[in-house]
Amino acid sequence: MLALAGIPLGLSFRFLDPSSDACAADVGELVVAPYDDPDGLERLADGAAAVTYEFENVPVAAGERVGTIPGIRSLEEGQDRLREKELFRSLGIPTARFGSLAETGVPALVKTRRLGYDGKGQRRVDDARAPLDDGELAEELVHFDRELSIIGVRGIDGEMRFWPVGENVHRDGILRVTRAPADARQGDAERICAAVLESLGHVGVLAVELFDVGGRLLANELAPRVHNTGHWTIDGAETSQFENHVRAILGLPLGSTAATGRCVMVNLIGAIPPLRELLTLPGAHVHLYGKEPRAGRKVGHVTLVDPDEAIADRLVALAG
Amino acid sequence: MLALAGIPLGLSFRFLDPSSDACAADVGELVVAPYDDPDGLERLADGAAAVTYEFENVPVAAGERVGTIPGIRSLEEGQDRLREKELFRSLGIPTARFGSLAETGVPALVKTRRLGYDGKGQRRVDDARAPLDDGELAEELVHFDRELSIIGVRGIDGEMRFWPVGENVHRDGILRVTRAPADARQGDAERICAAVLESLGHVGVLAVELFDVGGRLLANELAPRVHNTGHWTIDGAETSQFENHVRAILGLPLGSTAATGRCVMVNLIGAIPPLRELLTLPGAHVHLYGKEPRAGRKVGHVTLVDPDEAIADRLVALAG
Repeated sequence: MLALAGIPLGLSFRFLDPSSDACAADVGELVVAPYDDPDGLERLADGAAAVTYEFENVPVAAGERVGTIPGIRSLEEGQDRLREKELFRSLGIPTARFGSLAETGVPALVKTRRLGYDGKGQRRVDDARAPLDDGELAEELVHFDRELSIIGVRGIDGEMRFWPVGENVHRDGILRVTRAPADARQGDAERICAAVLESLGHVGVLAVELFDVGGRLLANELAPRVHNTGHWTIDGAETSQFENHVRAILGLPLGSTAATGRCVMVNLIGAIPPLRELLTLPGAHVHLYGKEPRAGRKVGHVTLVDPDEAIADRLVALAG
Repeated sequence: MLALAGIPLGLSFRFLDPSSDACAADVGELVVAPYDDPDGLERLADGAAAVTYEFENVPVAAGERVGTIPGIRSLEEGQDRLREKELFRSLGIPTARFGSLAETGVPALVKTRRLGYDGKGQRRVDDARAPLDDGELAEELVHFDRELSIIGVRGIDGEMRFWPVGENVHRDGILRVTRAPADARQGDAERICAAVLESLGHVGVLAVELFDVGGRLLANELAPRVHNTGHWTIDGAETSQFENHVRAILGLPLGSTAATGRCVMVNLIGAIPPLRELLTLPGAHVHLYGKEPRAGRKVGHVTLVDPDEAIADRLVALAG
């Protein structure tokens, strides 16, 4: 999606991926190598105006070697749930309690500090004496009213822009639906995102997931990259998160982040409904990723702009 | 632009182009061969769900060989200005007078029947006794109020949809600006386009260029393909001409052709203004084609949706 946004700006793309069937091969040159392979990294960066990442679990040493934008600091913080939360705390951003089970109380969520995503690597713990592994972190189980996310972009010159907050619905730990603009505390959310962007000296797009607890926002996680809860911006914002990320890392002027309508973005997970049925939905903007379906895998998304609720319901039902 | 619209639908693309630096190589597999090369055509069509064209001067025999959608009839008519006009006449669609200079009177425009585009292959003739070449056609010089175009799409099942009429400004025979929706006779234009689509059994997108003479529409040319005057639909319509062309030729449901705002599309001709300056224009949607600039060549376009007139003026000035 970064390439689809950047090609119209006259850019060409090269990708590094450990898998030879990476879907990015359709929109650029694919270098197949492990993320930390020196040759692969050299071929990736050869002649590139900028090297970026859309996956925060790239090894820091690899990022350092090719001089990614955003920089290493964003990668380091974004790889480690504990460091993320310590960053929030250091910036005075409210979070749920975290640390040891003694610090959080029970019930708590215990998560791996690294490499967890889509609900993987986390479990609920009800016994305060349960042992935690070295690489684990406990989080207070928050009874939130809803989950939100704020996505911002920061340019090389420090200019920042923010898309309207989205409201997210997860199932089994996996994002199902984002609705944006959410009726939410936009200003509070922007202040949180701005503090993170500035503290990291981040250049590019960054997302912060938030809990709304009675109108008070708690920061949950950050992602130093384009984010699934911002996919609606392709069809529903003046400038998508993908285009603005590309603009930012190349030092180009940022585009407007205003929404063009009320959006409903629905993930396609584990299976692709018949294309014919998706395209029959009035106003459906279909985005398939060219990935082989398997259980729990995000294989595409569909966005509706200013839909009738009945159409949005049909889409959610189709998505399974 | 067809590929950029189709990749999100999960499609992959292969292109046949005589030039090895064809910009389509960025978004699919490029087969470099003359249009009439049997091996090239075979490689192009191998395993393809559909073969289409976005250039009407593909040899008819080549189109026949691979079974293009739209079909051969559309290609034949769209390659020959005389046959186009005879088709309009046979359908009862008004045109300017055409044929010999005796039929048109002088002054007239004399055009090559084949291969002319962007004002090439045409000249003004003031002497009624001037000789015409075999491959030439005279057209009455029409004093029109404005140039319009209607773009329609027809599905395999015969369903037709039409985008709002655009108003076009040419300079030196080359399209500079399209504004859409134009305040125009939408119904009349749709009836003209529908008659052509049905008569050809056309599947896919087709454009008809029109003269508005005191509110009366005269058909000037047809293009049996996606059309420059429809490029605004990428950013300013519910479904772009490119996506609907892809949907149509694959027998998928057509998307809404409604405009999402008042659009101004400006072609970049001969040179690319600094990207930074284009992206500084609020709301600019920039589309560069990855083509080497040369005099008179269209190398990109920029669309504004619901712009301030001052911004539109700046864009037109930037485009040169």
